[in-house]
Amino acid sequence: MSFSPLIRQLIDSLRILPGVGQKTAQRMALQMLERDRSGGLQLARALTAAMEGVGHCQRCRTLSEDALCPLCADPRRDDSLLCVVEGPLEVFAVEQTGFRGRFFVLKGHLSPLDGLGPEAIGIPELLARVEAGSFSEIILATNPTVEGEATAHYIAQMLAGKGLSMTRIAHGVPLGGELEMVDGGTLAHALAGRRPMGA
Amino acid sequence: MSFSPLIRQLIDSLRILPGVGQKTAQRMALQMLERDRSGGLQLARALTAAMEGVGHCQRCRTLSEDALCPLCADPRRDDSLLCVVEGPLEVFAVEQTGFRGRFFVLKGHLSPLDGLGPEAIGIPELLARVEAGSFSEIILATNPTVEGEATAHYIAQMLAGKGLSMTRIAHGVPLGGELEMVDGGTLAHALAGRRPMGA
Repeated sequence: MSFSPLIRQLIDSLRILPGVGQKTAQRMALQMLERDRSGGLQLARALTAAMEGVGHCQRCRTLSEDALCPLCADPRRDDSLLCVVEGPLEVFAVEQTGFRGRFFVLKGHLSPLDGLGPEAIGIPELLARVEAGSFSEIILATNPTVEGEATAHYIAQMLAGKGLSMTRIAHGVPLGGELEMVDGGTLAHALAGRRPMGA
Repeated sequence: MSFSPLIRQLIDSLRILPGVGQKTAQRMALQMLERDRSGGLQLARALTAAMEGVGHCQRCRTLSEDALCPLCADPRRDDSLLCVVEGPLEVFAVEQTGFRGRFFVLKGHLSPLDGLGPEAIGIPELLARVEAGSFSEIILATNPTVEGEATAHYIAQMLAGKGLSMTRIAHGVPLGGELEMVDGGTLAHALAGRRPMGA
């Protein structure tokens, strides 16, 4: 091996990052060592602070070091809309569309084979959040996978009869795609969910 | 913004890594926070240790926290061969070919327009290393770019008349490629450097 122990250790540690293999880790380690040591130290401090300091928002369960995350703490958001997602990354994705309601973040989706039942993914907390809030609509924005659909259906059942409007994000053809490249299931959803033009 | 300050800081810091943009940094940060906090802390420790502890090998100038890097400290290597490269990553690349001589690591290549002359890239140290060693061959393995070629020629001039065999790595068609995809300059080199078959 041609790297000294500290460099080897840094390369191995960089490989915990998603999508980083041996070659990328080498390039990252050597580039930081040669060109940006203060950046490397800054990254080390940010990592330590975040790993030790970040917990979960009491209200929406997303990652946050404060008791209330910036979204829950913002008084200007729409308290009648609750968007339920599978994780913190999805909060960011939905947020970027211009959505300005509230969020609730599950810990993934129901997956009985992996032992992940309603308690494991935080559905009791979701029900408590809905009881405590003044929502008129619950948007179920779990992922468009089999497990995400099942999770959405389960939540819809649990919240039925409370006078809430329960909606699911639309399935259909993505913008900018070509019909011949879209899978059959998606296209069937797009046809079934067709809407009048010029609305 | 939908992330709390510590998470935002972590995302910003991850972007100093080469090839990591905003989306990748978000994914890295949230994945570490959700699934691998001990890995994140381990990475922070490795970064701090490497950024603060790694210097340069006294002999070959590669990155190393010891006075002599593992390659220079290894007594079993061939002391008659010296391979000159532009940086620590190239050491690793050449090492993987099975080369078992010694190395000297420049700080990049000559680039007069950027103010990088012979002193800036460590050529005086290279000359001193050659004087102090017992080499019979110097392999100039700078990159096959205009600047790398110029650097190789400069070094060859400086070391001329010392009774050393000075060689340059071969230019030619890469293995597994197709001739029609190879650029004209490379193909011209490959033709000019043709060798008898079955040697």
